Formats: sequence, C-alpha cells, structure tokens
Amino acid sequence: MNGKRSNDLDLKAQIVDVVDSLARTYLENDLLANVGDHPIPSRSEVIKSLDDVREVIYPGYFSRWPVDRINYKYHLGTVMNQIYEGFSAQIARSLRHECTGAHEVCDRCVRRGREAAVTFMGRLPEIRARLAGDVQATLESDPAAGRVEEVIFSYPGVNAVTVYRIAHELYHLEIPILPRIMSEHAHTVTGIDIHPGAHIGERFFIDHGTGVVIGETCVIGDDVKIYQGVTLGALSLPRDTTGKLVTGTKRHPTVEDRVTIYSGATILGGDTVIGAGSVVGGNVWLTGSIPPGTKVVIESPRLQYRGKALVEREPVIDFQI
Amino acid sequence: MNGKRSNDLDLKAQIVDVVDSLARTYLENDLLANVGDHPIPSRSEVIKSLDDVREVIYPGYFSRWPVDRINYKYHLGTVMNQIYEGFSAQIARSLRHECTGAHEVCDRCVRRGREAAVTFMGRLPEIRARLAGDVQATLESDPAAGRVEEVIFSYPGVNAVTVYRIAHELYHLEIPILPRIMSEHAHTVTGIDIHPGAHIGERFFIDHGTGVVIGETCVIGDDVKIYQGVTLGALSLPRDTTGKLVTGTKRHPTVEDRVTIYSGATILGGDTVIGAGSVVGGNVWLTGSIPPGTKVVIESPRLQYRGKALVEREPVIDFQI
Amino acid sequence: MNGKRSNDLDLKAQIVDVVDSLARTYLENDLLANVGDHPIPSRSEVIKSLDDVREVIYPGYFSRWPVDRINYKYHLGTVMNQIYEGFSAQIARSLRHECTGAHEVCDRCVRRGREAAVTFMGRLPEIRARLAGDVQATLESDPAAGRVEEVIFSYPGVNAVTVYRIAHELYHLEIPILPRIMSEHAHTVTGIDIHPGAHIGERFFIDHGTGVVIGETCVIGDDVKIYQGVTLGALSLPRDTTGKLVTGTKRHPTVEDRVTIYSGATILGGDTVIGAGSVVGGNVWLTGSIPPGTKVVIESPRLQYRGKALVEREPVIDFQI
Repeated sequence: MNGKRSNDLDLKAQIVDVVDSLARTYLENDLLANVGDHPIPSRSEVIKSLDDVREVIYPGYFSRWPVDRINYKYHLGTVMNQIYEGFSAQIARSLRHECTGAHEVCDRCVRRGREAAVTFMGRLPEIRARLAGDVQATLESDPAAGRVEEVIFSYPGVNAVTVYRIAHELYHLEIPILPRIMSEHAHTVTGIDIHPGAHIGERFFIDHGTGVVIGETCVIGDDVKIYQGVTLGALSLPRDTTGKLVTGTKRHPTVEDRVTIYSGATILGGDTVIGAGSVVGGNVWLTGSIPPGTKVVIESPRLQYRGKALVEREPVIDFQI
Repeated sequence: MNGKRSNDLDLKAQIVDVVDSLARTYLENDLLANVGDHPIPSRSEVIKSLDDVREVIYPGYFSRWPVDRINYKYHLGTVMNQIYEGFSAQIARSLRHECTGAHEVCDRCVRRGREAAVTFMGRLPEIRARLAGDVQATLESDPAAGRVEEVIFSYPGVNAVTVYRIAHELYHLEIPILPRIMSEHAHTVTGIDIHPGAHIGERFFIDHGTGVVIGETCVIGDDVKIYQGVTLGALSLPRDTTGKLVTGTKRHPTVEDRVTIYSGATILGGDTVIGAGSVVGGNVWLTGSIPPGTKVVIESPRLQYRGKALVEREPVIDFQI
Repeated sequence: MNGKRSNDLDLKAQIVDVVDSLARTYLENDLLANVGDHPIPSRSEVIKSLDDVREVIYPGYFSRWPVDRINYKYHLGTVMNQIYEGFSAQIARSLRHECTGAHEVCDRCVRRGREAAVTFMGRLPEIRARLAGDVQATLESDPAAGRVEEVIFSYPGVNAVTVYRIAHELYHLEIPILPRIMSEHAHTVTGIDIHPGAHIGERFFIDHGTGVVIGETCVIGDDVKIYQGVTLGALSLPRDTTGKLVTGTKRHPTVEDRVTIYSGATILGGDTVIGAGSVVGGNVWLTGSIPPGTKVVIESPRLQYRGKALVEREPVIDFQI
C-alpha cells in the first residue's frame, strides 16, 4: 500500500515538469494555442445553437419534448430566444477575436453580435421556404423516399443542405469562424462537405452523399441533382513570386439549372460551366465546359473476364488492407 | 448601460414578428412541420434503444459499468427491460403516426407496439448468432484484425452490420420510420449506408467501408466480402404517365454466395446477378450479370509518366480544392 | 385498464425467457461476450481522455470554459491530472485483460498503466511540435484555409492526424486495444482511417479526407500531401498451409518526402515505393514503385458526348439508387 502510493506520487511529480514545459510554450508564439484576453467562439455552443435552429425549421422532429397544436408556440418562442442568446454571444466572440482595436472600452462587437443574430433570424422563414423545396425535390427524385418523415429524419443530403443554408446566411453576413464550424460539423455527420461560401439554387438534391465536396466559389443553379462522391473542385492555383497561393478568384465550377451529376464524377476549375439540362455520367472527369443539354459519359474501360480456375486462390494483383 | 439594454430589447422585439410569422406557417400545409396531435418517434430515444440492444448483443463492451460473472444477469435484465419500454413506446408512436383511424378511443397502437417489441426481443438470440458469424468472418479475412476486442470495438463494418441486422428485423415486422432512423444513424457513424430492406446472408464482411451503399432490394448470399466505396445500386427507374417514378420492383442486384467485391466497384440493376464464387475487381462498373466463378477486372487505364522537370511546379491539369 | 395491464405483464413474462436464454449463452464459449473477471477498457472513457489530450494540445479551442492568460495554468494542470488518471486506469485494464498470469495477488498492470501514462504525457511537447508542423503545412497548402482557428476547429485532416499522433505513441508503447479505439473514433468523425501503426513524417497534409485509408505498415516521409479517397493499402496476402493469412510483414507502401497524391488514387503493396518529390494523379492505381521525381497521371478515359435529344428522358444505363 505504501509502495503503491509512492509509485503513484513519484509518477505524478514527473507530470509537473511536463505541465511547466507546456505552460511555457503556450505564452510564446505558439501556433496551436489560443490563450488570449478574448476567447474564440465555443464549438460546442455553436453546434447547440445550430441544433436549436433545426428545431425551429423542422418543428416536431428534433424537439426535446413532443410538440403539439397547443404548446408549439411556447416551444417556438423559447427556442427562438435561445437562438438569439446563443448566436449573439458566439458572433460577438468571433467578431471580437478578429478585432484589432482597443477591446476594453468598447461593446461594438456585442451590439453587432446581437444585430447579426436578429438579421439572421429574420431570414428564417425564407430559409424554411428554400428547404421545403429541397425536401420536395428529394421526395420526387428518390424512389426509396416514401415518407417526408424519413427524408427529414434520416437523409444526410437534407441534413447537409439544411446546415449549408444556415451557414451560408452567416457567411453572407461576413461572420467569421462560425460558418466553417457549422459546415465541418455537417461534414462529420453526413460525409458531405459543402463550403458555406458556395451559391446553391432551389430544389437541390444530394443522394447518399458520402464524399461529396462542393468548393467555396461554386455557383449551382436550380433543380440540380448530385450523387455520392461528386467533387466540384478547383484546379491547382498559381503561386505568386513569394511562393504564396493566389486566392480570391472564382476557383470552382458553375453548374447551371436542371443538371444531374452521377456518382464519383469530378468537375474542376473556375471557368468550367456545365450547361443547363446536362447530364454528367458516373466517374466522369471534366476540367472544361460543356454546352447546355449535353450528356457526357465515360467510355467504360474494357473488362477482362476469367473463368473458374482463377477463383479459388486470389492472384497477386488483388488487394486487401 | 441604459443604451445597451434598449438595444437588446429593441432587437428582441423584432424576434417577436419572426416568431409570429413562423408560427402561422406551422399550422398551414407546411411540409417541414410535424405539429399534430400525435408525436412522431423521437430520434434520440430510438438511438438510445439501439444502444441498449448493442449492450445486450455484445455484453461487457458497451456497458455503462463493468460487467462480470456475478452481476451480468442483473445487468442484462435491466437493459432488456429498458429495450422493452423504449421500443414499445417508439413503435407505438410510429404506428399511431401512420394510422388514419380515430385515435382517442383506441389503444391498438400501444398494444401493437408492445407486441412488436417482444417479438423483436425474441429474435435477439438469432441476431446474436448471425453477428457472431459476421465477427468470425472479419477475424478470418482481415490480417490487421488481431483481437476480437478490436473488431467489436472499432470495426465500422461490424458496427454497420450490427445495426442493419437489428433494423432489418423491424423492417420485416413492418414498423415504419424506426428502421431508417437506425440505418441512417449507422451511416453517420460508419460511412456505410445499408438499407434495412436489403437481404444479407451469413458471415458478411465489410472492410473499412466508407462510401459503401447497399440498396433496398439487394439480395446478398453467404460469405460475401465487400470493400470500401462499393455501390450496389439501381438503374434509372422509368416514370409512369403522370411523371411519377415506378417503384415496388426489385431495383438492386443479387450477389450470390462467396462473392468478393473490391473497392470502388459499382454494380447496378435489379436483374443483375453476380454468380457464386465470383470476384469483382476494384472500380469495375457492371450493369449486367456474370456467371458463377467469374473473375472480372478492369483493363487498367494506361499511365503517363514524366520525369523531374515537371515536378517543381504543378501543371494546370492537377486540382486542389 | 385491467386488460391493458395484463397485456403488458403477459408480454413482459415472455421477455424473461429471452433473458434466460441470452444469459446462458453469455457464459458459454461466446464470441461476442466479454463477461470476465477483469473488464476491458471503456470505450467512452478512452474517448474522454482523448478529448482531454486535445484540450492540452490546442489550449483555448476545445476547453469547457474560456482559457485566458490568468487561468490557463490551473486549467492545464487540472486536465493533465485527468489525463493521468484516465490513461492509467484504461491502460491498466487493457494490459490486465491481455495478461495470462495470476491476477488477484498482482498489481503490475496498475503500475505499468501509470508508468505508461506518464511516459506518454512526457511526449506531449514533442507531439505538439509535430502537430504545429502539420497545421502550418495545411495553412500553406489550402487556399481556402484563411485562419489558423478554422484549420484547428474544423479541418478533418488536422483532427485525424492529431488522433493518429496520439494513438501512434500508445501503439509504440505496445498498449493494446486503446490505439485502435482512438483511430476508429477519428475514422467515425472524419472519414479518415489511419492505422496507429503507420509511420508518418513531419508536415503531413490531408485535404477533405473522406475515404482516405492508410494501412498499418505504411512508411510516409516529410511534406507529403494526400487528398480525399486515397488508399495506401496491401496486396492480397498469401495464406499458409493451414489456410491462415500470413501476417507480420510490411504489407503497405512507402511514400518518400515531398510526394503529393491526388484524390482517389490507390497505391498497394509492401514493396511499392513512391520516390521523393513524385506526384501521383487522381484515380491512379499503382502496385509497383516509381522513381524519385516522377509524375504519373492516368490517360483520361475518352468521353462520349450526346446532344439535347437524349436529355429529356434519361436512358437505362444511368443509375439512381
């Protein structure tokens, strides 16, 4: 017992040195530390507010208690108040964190946080209308989607587009940090990576969606359908004379109205335009534009078939991880 | 202080209008609202019950306290009781939500919820036996799988197949909504999307699994192995004269016993049959059947090699997002 | 009411049989049960300790309360103490679970757990220095990465590499089970699957990352960049005369310094070496080595274009799931 305790204490004494050594680096020019006078937004609070917004958008679905025709308005008012408080605080944090002025005597960030929260909340009916179009498009496009309840509860595409439409509003209001926290949270949950800066039209449908990537400067029209594994990305950027990447230009494609892009297709480049009504087949790789009404598919690679003899023992060219 | 408060109150007053405007739409014909007399199932409660079932299937692994040879039976009984209560309540909700009859004077949904919960629980020994086969197949197929503990704790394929075998039972019992909530939860956690309607035989092995999609009407035999990124999907469905998709038929492939499908392969169509013992190579794209014992690989695309000169500065055809 | 109650009790009586039947199998030779005298590590406790380590690595980012220049050292000391307690206990569990000796009279596992926890914690400054290099490489390589805050908060690649560098230390200390729990947790959250046994050099950058797989015996140099969907895998393993897979050799590729591998590329085999400074294009499939400074791209498959006529009604070769 005595031996056990001193073993424990001896070891704990060693931790003290590590604590001191870490603590020293925190206050130096430490890339990974954020130990300033003004805290950055709290990731968990931002996600909590995002969940609150989802409750208001889809009443009855994600509520913590049953919502009925009597209590729904109390519920709505309560959650809207939470959204106001949560967004005000986190937006203020994100603005103050970026501010280079004198912080102590100034409450501009607090005011601006509140104003941005209210502006955002005023956009909620419009966001809901957009999302109703997206849900409707999902119901009409997917034969496995029998009930609106299943689509809202469990379609990752609907979830990702919901978060995108919320984050895009905040991006539009030039709020730093928060939109990316939201979009990466959606990426984690759905496997779908939509940059909040992208422009996406009405009745957007993503099926399955794992691996979908939609870059920051994409412009996507109405009634577009996208399947799993589609990348709308950028070509390599040039670097300037100091070796830094040249940014700030349109780097990602334009996809016009009524385009369908099947799984695994990759479309790259800021000057690339997929004309209205076009269909891009699975695994197609495009770095240039196609005119409206075009259908493009890959010439399937030839397949080699072999008979029974080879099946019993797999040959070396197969893989296994 | 005075100015700050009125700024805050003025802004809050603006929220009231948004609340009123949202509340009005909730009671209209609102696609996104579920504000009825009878609440839909609670997603979080369904997932809690799913976790309870997992505790019973893999005792000692996911329990909230250590399970030993003395306490395990108390633990099992307690969790089984939770499963009964949870499933009864959520199944009743899902049935009542779908019911078109007179709700108030009728407790049929409550009774049917309880009965379905007990029927499901009676299938647990069978489900466990199936999953033991799946875990065994994983241990035998994956050279990196040293310990059964690692396989059960951390293999996404095992996790996804566990949820599938649970959800499939409920699908079979014709319980609405719940199976899809479960399968989408597994999709979120594992990146593997198995529709609860699919039929999957014994000793099924999925390696890594990110991006795997297995459609609703798939029929998969015994001893099948599938790698990451494999899609077992449907061809485009015809639309009827009103423009609606024609559904209700077998839309997804049949995969017979002892088939291996390597990563990135796509197999489509309800009439497509992959004959027993076949091997489908990586990235193969099939929309027709292959006979038993066939091995099919793609003719690899030719590669273009270039020397050192081009490496220092990446050319325009590369991409970066 | 009476009828309702007996319906409920009758049904509950049926559960008792299932409980008994499950309980019997638990104590038999049950592959899925872990009902021994010594509990295995708790998955949720391991993940909690992992989150604690992240707080210490990125102070101010993931903390439960704001960290400032006054309180940061209290905070650090508290979390470090939690890490010590959590790791000590879970490492001891994992060691004792594997131990074949007489448990009751021996506290070696407890001592070894503590010692391993302290050894691990002593490596934290070095782990932080490595991760600072990874974050810096991300900032320099991704034009969308404007702020270090966004990179640390929301880049799945940074998250996955953080967990890898932690898990790799424990793997190196020969701690069972824990490293794989951690790496699979990261896989769930990020879609990136890095085996804790892999060796990865400095300034490693993964973009987007969904679907990335890095196998156990990979050796990766410095300044390597990898995009989404890249697999660094193994060829099929031979089986020995008893039919068991031959393991324990290097099965996964070597990637030398300054290599870039674009999305969807697959590189397989323990003898495969991608020479320093090489560039592997999107979707390339390699099972052999390439010399330093090589650029390899696939000859793009030819595309077939069709005009407007075909767009109105999608032909049968398209798919939809």
